[in-house]
Amino acid sequence: MSDLCLAKEEYRVRRDRIIAALDREGLAAMVFFNSTSIAYLTGFAFIPTERPAALILEPARASLYLPRLELEHAEETAYVDLVRTYPEYPGEVHPMRGLAGLLQEFGLASGRLGADAAGYGSGMGYEGPRLEEVLPQASLKLLPKLVEGLRAIKSPAEVRLIGESSRWGNLAHVLLQEYSLPGRTENEISQRASMEATMAMVRTLGASYEPRGGHGAAAGFRGQIGPNSALPHAITRNLRLRPGDVLVTGAGATVWGYHSELERTMFVGRPSPEQAKFFGLMVELQDLALATIRPGIPCSEVDRAVRAFYDANDLWPYWRHHVGHALGMLGHEAPFLDIGDQTIIEPGMVFSVEPGLYVPGLGGFRHSDTLVVTQAGIDLLTYYPRDLESLICG
Amino acid sequence: MSDLCLAKEEYRVRRDRIIAALDREGLAAMVFFNSTSIAYLTGFAFIPTERPAALILEPARASLYLPRLELEHAEETAYVDLVRTYPEYPGEVHPMRGLAGLLQEFGLASGRLGADAAGYGSGMGYEGPRLEEVLPQASLKLLPKLVEGLRAIKSPAEVRLIGESSRWGNLAHVLLQEYSLPGRTENEISQRASMEATMAMVRTLGASYEPRGGHGAAAGFRGQIGPNSALPHAITRNLRLRPGDVLVTGAGATVWGYHSELERTMFVGRPSPEQAKFFGLMVELQDLALATIRPGIPCSEVDRAVRAFYDANDLWPYWRHHVGHALGMLGHEAPFLDIGDQTIIEPGMVFSVEPGLYVPGLGGFRHSDTLVVTQAGIDLLTYYPRDLESLICG
Repeated sequence: MSDLCLAKEEYRVRRDRIIAALDREGLAAMVFFNSTSIAYLTGFAFIPTERPAALILEPARASLYLPRLELEHAEETAYVDLVRTYPEYPGEVHPMRGLAGLLQEFGLASGRLGADAAGYGSGMGYEGPRLEEVLPQASLKLLPKLVEGLRAIKSPAEVRLIGESSRWGNLAHVLLQEYSLPGRTENEISQRASMEATMAMVRTLGASYEPRGGHGAAAGFRGQIGPNSALPHAITRNLRLRPGDVLVTGAGATVWGYHSELERTMFVGRPSPEQAKFFGLMVELQDLALATIRPGIPCSEVDRAVRAFYDANDLWPYWRHHVGHALGMLGHEAPFLDIGDQTIIEPGMVFSVEPGLYVPGLGGFRHSDTLVVTQAGIDLLTYYPRDLESLICG
Repeated sequence: MSDLCLAKEEYRVRRDRIIAALDREGLAAMVFFNSTSIAYLTGFAFIPTERPAALILEPARASLYLPRLELEHAEETAYVDLVRTYPEYPGEVHPMRGLAGLLQEFGLASGRLGADAAGYGSGMGYEGPRLEEVLPQASLKLLPKLVEGLRAIKSPAEVRLIGESSRWGNLAHVLLQEYSLPGRTENEISQRASMEATMAMVRTLGASYEPRGGHGAAAGFRGQIGPNSALPHAITRNLRLRPGDVLVTGAGATVWGYHSELERTMFVGRPSPEQAKFFGLMVELQDLALATIRPGIPCSEVDRAVRAFYDANDLWPYWRHHVGHALGMLGHEAPFLDIGDQTIIEPGMVFSVEPGLYVPGLGGFRHSDTLVVTQAGIDLLTYYPRDLESLICG
């Protein structure tokens, strides 16, 4: 078995935890509509659309309910006992009616049933009844955060996948930096780096590599170029790099559906003294965050420590966001390294650490690294150089 | 004003339609949480995350409520009267409380208020109260489909953007076909074609081109290579092309947030007689669909006509999905060319037309073209060759 996937056993362990929760809650079964939860519990990575998908988890059986077009795909790749399909959405009979029929067939239509949402949801033109409308006899309990709670603590196998992702994100970032020369456009640099890193990744890993939801490695700027780098969530605008630009980057790779996050502040040519000053302060902020994170403290404590540095150095005009977020199957996950998040940090949690400074007109300054919390403290999974001299392009 | 964007006036017209709906419904204002609706009504394209975003639309004022990190970005690019922010999510005060405070300040906390959803929603670790919990005095009416209804009929300017998208999707597809040679991997072909098409696009269109949510042109296979082409929604698996493979492709480009859809069935070398037979039947299915679509008939009639061909030719074992779907800002939108969709086809609707045949072991056969419905019938916006001889690679 390659290290680049999760074993069937891992999915069984996850489902056992859900089944234990069913028992605690006195529920006969759980219905999951969320596509990330379905992938987490069955290994079935698919493209969510307006067509409803659901996983019915009973203590002795896992069943997928899918549109006809996913049948062979699910039978080939999902760790489940049964795949049932409906013809199409909207179709002649609404798929939620078909789901109710299947639950009836399973003897679940009048029992105590858990669900992760009131019904299927999709912004792609879907509409339909809630579960309680098609199952009027059932006693429904919404447990929207059950899987998200499990996902917050990564297993050693999940951490290996995130670590593998960070290796190829690193390569993509090396190439991105190499191609970041004045006169080149955002897309040219980003797509060339992403393509070459992906090809190296595919050739290196061979058939053992399955992205499961993405397609290889990628690095880019997301529009954070020059003055636009001061917008923490800019979007791509095809800007051309100019001498003196501050760049804020992002790189990663998808490995069996898992992600990592690597972001760096770079300079096209030598930075101005003012830019170098903010870069130095940003690195101090990140160092402080990294030194604070450890198991047993609440997430809020990390943000509070970093906020004290903003206080002490009069940096509030340049503050835009909290210290970081969990990640794994999704790029952003709970919990958050935020003053309002009292979740206790535990071994196995994976966080981005990325306090930033954003100076209108001058540029944005943010590094982001991915770490896993251990019994002893933290292990950094990203390892790209963080010092100024290493981050000058051209 | 370039043709590659929408004028401020277009956003005003859209908002006037919402304001007319407020009037009809006797509502003082509407709150929109959906990121596509916010972009549709304000021009603000942004990255939705766990941080709530909302648009408050009153007859005389459009206000965005955003996380602090989006302030400058929104002030620069959104057509609104006001941008208000909250510090962060989860933060010390839940952002939904801040939204309630803003609505209170606007005198809307105890009036009749519309909303597109019960509250903000995000799979990225968000949780929070519903609008009715933070605004107990308000009389709330959910109108989840208001904007989706408007989006279904595209303006001439929107059709121009989708047409521009299809030109660059065409180029990406030409390159994809050129690079589809035996021995090459999916990612290599796809990323090279996408990068070169994007660079041509950026260089041709210059600064007038703003993707607004994507990054240029792209073409690929999404895993539909060889036997996997028989899975209508396969996912990328880095397969290597082999002689005799059937390929199902996809190409498009993002232009000011609008998309087009171009898909083709191609062959690595000459197809077998069996493959050529199914290819021919698929083209007949698509011809039949294209000949049926016209304004004034229900969407279901198109699917019914195509289903009659499956009947007449014993093709049901190879059926997997309906004829097509609307598209525009999203890749899939309502209405659907589906036997269960009774929406009347109107001029300005933009559809994909893509009936398919999927033969396990042999391959998948699907072309998808994008068309706009006109007073007289249809205009095809995609124009890549559809005949077998033009679609043989290598």
